[in-house]
Amino acid sequence: MTRTAVVALGGNALAAEGQRGTYDEQRTNAAGMAAAICELLDAGWRVVVVHGNGPQVGNLAVQQELGRGEVPEMPLFSLGAMTEGQLGSLIAIALYRVCGRRHRIAALLSHVIVDLDDPAFDRPSKPIGPFFSAEAGAELTHARGWDMVDDAGRGHRRVVASPEPKGFVEIDAIRCLLDAGQVVVTGGGGGIPVGRRGDVWDGVDAVIDKDFAAAELAHQLDADTLVLITAVDAVQLDFGLQTQRRLAVLDTAEAERHLAAGQFPDGSMGPKVRAAVRFVQRGGQASVITTAGLVGATLDSTDPADQSTGTRIVPVTSGEAATI
Amino acid sequence: MTRTAVVALGGNALAAEGQRGTYDEQRTNAAGMAAAICELLDAGWRVVVVHGNGPQVGNLAVQQELGRGEVPEMPLFSLGAMTEGQLGSLIAIALYRVCGRRHRIAALLSHVIVDLDDPAFDRPSKPIGPFFSAEAGAELTHARGWDMVDDAGRGHRRVVASPEPKGFVEIDAIRCLLDAGQVVVTGGGGGIPVGRRGDVWDGVDAVIDKDFAAAELAHQLDADTLVLITAVDAVQLDFGLQTQRRLAVLDTAEAERHLAAGQFPDGSMGPKVRAAVRFVQRGGQASVITTAGLVGATLDSTDPADQSTGTRIVPVTSGEAATI
Repeated sequence: MTRTAVVALGGNALAAEGQRGTYDEQRTNAAGMAAAICELLDAGWRVVVVHGNGPQVGNLAVQQELGRGEVPEMPLFSLGAMTEGQLGSLIAIALYRVCGRRHRIAALLSHVIVDLDDPAFDRPSKPIGPFFSAEAGAELTHARGWDMVDDAGRGHRRVVASPEPKGFVEIDAIRCLLDAGQVVVTGGGGGIPVGRRGDVWDGVDAVIDKDFAAAELAHQLDADTLVLITAVDAVQLDFGLQTQRRLAVLDTAEAERHLAAGQFPDGSMGPKVRAAVRFVQRGGQASVITTAGLVGATLDSTDPADQSTGTRIVPVTSGEAATI
Repeated sequence: MTRTAVVALGGNALAAEGQRGTYDEQRTNAAGMAAAICELLDAGWRVVVVHGNGPQVGNLAVQQELGRGEVPEMPLFSLGAMTEGQLGSLIAIALYRVCGRRHRIAALLSHVIVDLDDPAFDRPSKPIGPFFSAEAGAELTHARGWDMVDDAGRGHRRVVASPEPKGFVEIDAIRCLLDAGQVVVTGGGGGIPVGRRGDVWDGVDAVIDKDFAAAELAHQLDADTLVLITAVDAVQLDFGLQTQRRLAVLDTAEAERHLAAGQFPDGSMGPKVRAAVRFVQRGGQASVITTAGLVGATLDSTDPADQSTGTRIVPVTSGEAATI
């Protein structure tokens, strides 16, 4: 039986920390990702690839500002669409190189619905783009209505809302391609946010968390597994302490207890664990959090005590009710 | 019976001459295009939308240069991929607004194969991006291997090759979506050029003419009609002279005679007529050249003397053999 996985790669997986983010660097990084995805395909999985776009959309935002005098700047959601083009093509070409003879690849733009009444719009918190002086920041708030924060020491920076994904507009197209045996690259950067003002749809300047977008997509597709690729092998308890230990398998109830206890901070593993839990609570068989190199082994792992693979988050098996 | 049309819009149709190319301007222009496409859909046509990207990729190239000190610049083919994201999303949102309740839309990135031995690479002629001083131009040739031309009076500018499209890599995905009843937006800017060096595929810094790309796609899809949207109602003979007259219908042999006689210059109608002829010579029923507003009437026109519609290019009906 064919199994379906939605695999989410970080934008940092393509432009790694410490790198400038040149095309050559990104191509090399993408090759590693493509090899891991190809391994899944060859093992018979149907795969949808979702990717982040943090460093790339940040770079575009810098270029838009520096080019302002000469060229009109585009809204943030349009920059997001550009990164879906840029990175969708990068990943597709990387896959063509590794397994283009055996597998077909389609990179599809996706628009993701957000609710304009989402409380996230009342407290924009996601920093985006270049740093400005206090004066320039105040001017941008006045001229463009941007929310700015003072990022201690580094300057003033635009912040946008990070609303919940409410559904992929192009879900039928994604399903159609997947059913035809295509690897689908989509939902880049969490997808292009769209919302409805009155009866009219338009792009929305916001950033949808790409792991939550991937979880939403996996749910809509009725996928078996959500794979969240990170820079660390596995989720850890007591991270950085002497009692630090890796988690091979945990159920959603355990994961929620650890989240409530503050084990997974918001800036690092927190959103990933929350996205993983959400997918499983809505009916998914498992979510996996691990590095690209360990995805195959983690998906195949049958030994819950196996300390050489990543982390699997699974449904509660006892009488505990799953909450949605 | 369902008929299929590949409809090519100019990049200038989205960022019109005299406009700065802001998002609001492009959204307004896209709304007009979407209305014309929607008319075709409602008349029962299956539609693939191809779009140009000249002004948009030019603007991105300017921003890349102005941001160079702070952010690594991407290769031209990657900028092309970005415009497929930007404009694919723009057109999709415009279509969602006009007919999102009746029709489904999918914007797919496309890679188009070019032959690295194409003679076009020996004489790069397509100008792209910003103007530079003579010194800066020489430096760019040295540092990045760019071919530069001296554009009399305006400065030095990069030129790239415009090779022939040899096939859409994602043709199966496009067909799959079309068969599922989706409007497919793809091949933007002529598609992202890819070529094979040895056994390895990679992006190629070149620009594929979007009308030739549309003709290639229409052929690969076995479409009925290729529609090339322009700023003028119809193809004219003796353009600008007192004997100027519009052409309602002409066959490919007549079109080739007019091309040979220099009736359609390279800088304006020439490439469109050539692309139109090529599609019909390879088996297409008709190519249409007209404005967005006249597409519907031109496709339905049965009167060859009708002077109120655009131009139809059709196969030769006599014993003359069609050449390929």
